[in-house]
Amino acid sequence: MPELRSNPLTKKWVVIATERAKRPDSYVCVRREEEPGKLCPFCLGNEGMTPPETFAYREANSLPDGPGWQVRVVPNKFPAFIRGNNFDLKQGPLYSTASAIGEQEVIIHAPDHVNDLGTLPEEQVTLVLEAYKERYCALCVNKNIKYILFVVNHGKEAGASIAHPHSQLFAIPLTPEVVENEIKNSYEFYKENGECSLCSMIKEELKKKERMVVETEKFVSFVPFAATVPFEVLLAPKNHKAQFELYSKEEIKELAYILKKTLNLLYKKLNDPPFNYYLHTSPCCQNISFYHWHFEILPKLTTMAGFEMGTGIIINPVLPEEAARFLREK
Amino acid sequence: MPELRSNPLTKKWVVIATERAKRPDSYVCVRREEEPGKLCPFCLGNEGMTPPETFAYREANSLPDGPGWQVRVVPNKFPAFIRGNNFDLKQGPLYSTASAIGEQEVIIHAPDHVNDLGTLPEEQVTLVLEAYKERYCALCVNKNIKYILFVVNHGKEAGASIAHPHSQLFAIPLTPEVVENEIKNSYEFYKENGECSLCSMIKEELKKKERMVVETEKFVSFVPFAATVPFEVLLAPKNHKAQFELYSKEEIKELAYILKKTLNLLYKKLNDPPFNYYLHTSPCCQNISFYHWHFEILPKLTTMAGFEMGTGIIINPVLPEEAARFLREK
Repeated sequence: MPELRSNPLTKKWVVIATERAKRPDSYVCVRREEEPGKLCPFCLGNEGMTPPETFAYREANSLPDGPGWQVRVVPNKFPAFIRGNNFDLKQGPLYSTASAIGEQEVIIHAPDHVNDLGTLPEEQVTLVLEAYKERYCALCVNKNIKYILFVVNHGKEAGASIAHPHSQLFAIPLTPEVVENEIKNSYEFYKENGECSLCSMIKEELKKKERMVVETEKFVSFVPFAATVPFEVLLAPKNHKAQFELYSKEEIKELAYILKKTLNLLYKKLNDPPFNYYLHTSPCCQNISFYHWHFEILPKLTTMAGFEMGTGIIINPVLPEEAARFLREK
Repeated sequence: MPELRSNPLTKKWVVIATERAKRPDSYVCVRREEEPGKLCPFCLGNEGMTPPETFAYREANSLPDGPGWQVRVVPNKFPAFIRGNNFDLKQGPLYSTASAIGEQEVIIHAPDHVNDLGTLPEEQVTLVLEAYKERYCALCVNKNIKYILFVVNHGKEAGASIAHPHSQLFAIPLTPEVVENEIKNSYEFYKENGECSLCSMIKEELKKKERMVVETEKFVSFVPFAATVPFEVLLAPKNHKAQFELYSKEEIKELAYILKKTLNLLYKKLNDPPFNYYLHTSPCCQNISFYHWHFEILPKLTTMAGFEMGTGIIINPVLPEEAARFLREK
C-alpha cells in the first residue's frame, strides 16, 4: 500500500509510491560527455572572462583576476538580483512589485574543470566552505540584504549552465517563503516539544539508523523520513545551531569531510547524478534560536509533473529506507 | 532593473529577470520524434492493454474495452493512490503517516495518437471536458475522497511517460496544500475587497489588455502578472464560480473552444512545447463561495534549480507582457 508521510520541518506530505517503485539501482545514471570546444570562463587562465573577483584564496604573490587561485568568487554575469539601495516595495491593491535588489556571486570550487565537491580533495572542500563563510559575513552587514542562500546546481539536468563545478550565492532583499515556513514550523514544534523539529529528527534517525547515510562526531546526513525525491539527503549539525556562519575553522573541516563523503556516495552509487543542494540558515544577522541550519541535497532523477505542481504533494517512487541502505552499502 | 512581482492568488513572489532575458522566439521548440516500435496501450485495438474502462463515450453498438470509442477512461495501471476505505492517519509526535487511498484514472483524449487538445477537433475537446465532469461527479460522492485534480502532462520533458495524449485524474484523501493556500488567500482578499482575487485579476486584465491571450463571452485566458514560467497561461470563467463540475453542456462547449484556442496558440507559436496543466476547483462537495476555479497551463521550457527549490521564489526570464504579445501576434 502506498504511504503518505509528512515532514515535520516543512509540513509537506509526500506519497511513497511503492506500487510504481523501481529498484534503487535503476536510478544509476548514464554519464554524459560535455559538449567540447567551449572556452570555460571558470578555468585557470580565463579569469578575464568573468567580472572582477570579489574574493579568492590564492598564492601569496599572485594578482587578483590572474592565475594562482584555489577558490575564486566572482559576481554573476547575468544576475536576477542586482546591486541597489532601494527595495522600493509598491504594494498595490491587487498586484505588488519591488526592485529585485541584491547580490549574486559564483564560487568557483577549484581550478579543476571536472571534479566537484564529491571528488575534490577534502582540503579543497574546506576552502569552498570557508569561502561561503567569508562571503556570507561580508554581505550580511548590508541592511538591504535579508537572506543569503548558497546553492549548487550540478549537471545540466539540475540547471547548471556552466559545467565547471561552482556554487552560487544569492543575497536577496526578503526572507524567502520556504525558509519563513520552516521557521514557523520550527517555532510551533519548539513550543510544544521544547526542542526544534530537526533536533528531534536527528535523535530519531541516530536511534533508528535505517535512514542514516554518514555520521561524524558533530554532524549527520540521512535520508529524510518523508524524502521528496529518490536519494534526497539532509545534512546538519547534531547539536542545535541556528547560524551556519558562526562555525569555527575546526568545525568547517569536519563539515567538509561529511559533505564530501555524502556527495561521494551519491557520485559512486548513482554514477555522478545531477543534483541540487541548498544551505538553509537563519535570516541575516538574526539568531532565530529555534531554527536549525542544514543542507538539503536533492538528486534530479525524476520529473516534477502536473500533480506535484497542482497539489504541492510529491510522489517519491523510492522508499527512503531503501535509498539510504543503497547509499550505505559497501 | 529586474522586478519582483507577487501573485495575489498564491501570494508567491517571482523575479521577472530582464537582465538574463531572451527573446520570446528563442523558446520555440525543436520537435522531437517519438521512439518508434512501442505498442501504444491507448491506441484503438489495444484496449486489452489497460485495466477495464470505468467510462467511455462510444458508438451505440460497441462493447466496453473494445474499439468504437471517442474518449475512454481507465484506471491508472501504476497508481500512487489506491482504492481503499481507511485513510488511517497516524499522527506521531514527530512523523505522521496515512494510507494513500484514492483513485487514479487516465482519460484518453481520442483514438488519435498524435493530436492533443490544441489540435484535435473542438467537438473532441468538448467530449474530454464532459468526461472530466462525468468522472468528477461519479467519484466525489465517495466520502474518503477530499479532492479531485485533473492534470495533463504533455511531452516527455513535462513528465509524460506515454506519448498518446491523455489527462490524469487524481482523487485523493486530503485537500492539497496548494489549494488550501489559494482558498485561504482568496478568503482574505474577499474579506478586504468584497470580491475574490481572481475576479479582481480578470477585471484588471480585461481592462489593461496587455497580458490577454484569448477572450470569449464567458471565459478569459491571460498570462498572469506574476507568471512563474515563460508563457504561463491562466484560464478561468469571467463570472465567479467555485465549482468546475457544475458547468452546463452549453458552457462546456465554450470552454472547449477557449481551451483549444489557447493550447493551439502555444502549439503554433512555440512549436508544440511540452507543458503541464492542472484544474483547480473547490474541494469535493464543497462550494467554497469565495474560491474561483481555473486552469493553470505551464509550458516546460526552463529548469527549476536550487534557488527556486530553496526559496520558493521563481526566476522567470520572460516578461509576462511580452509572452502574451508573442502568443497573440498574427
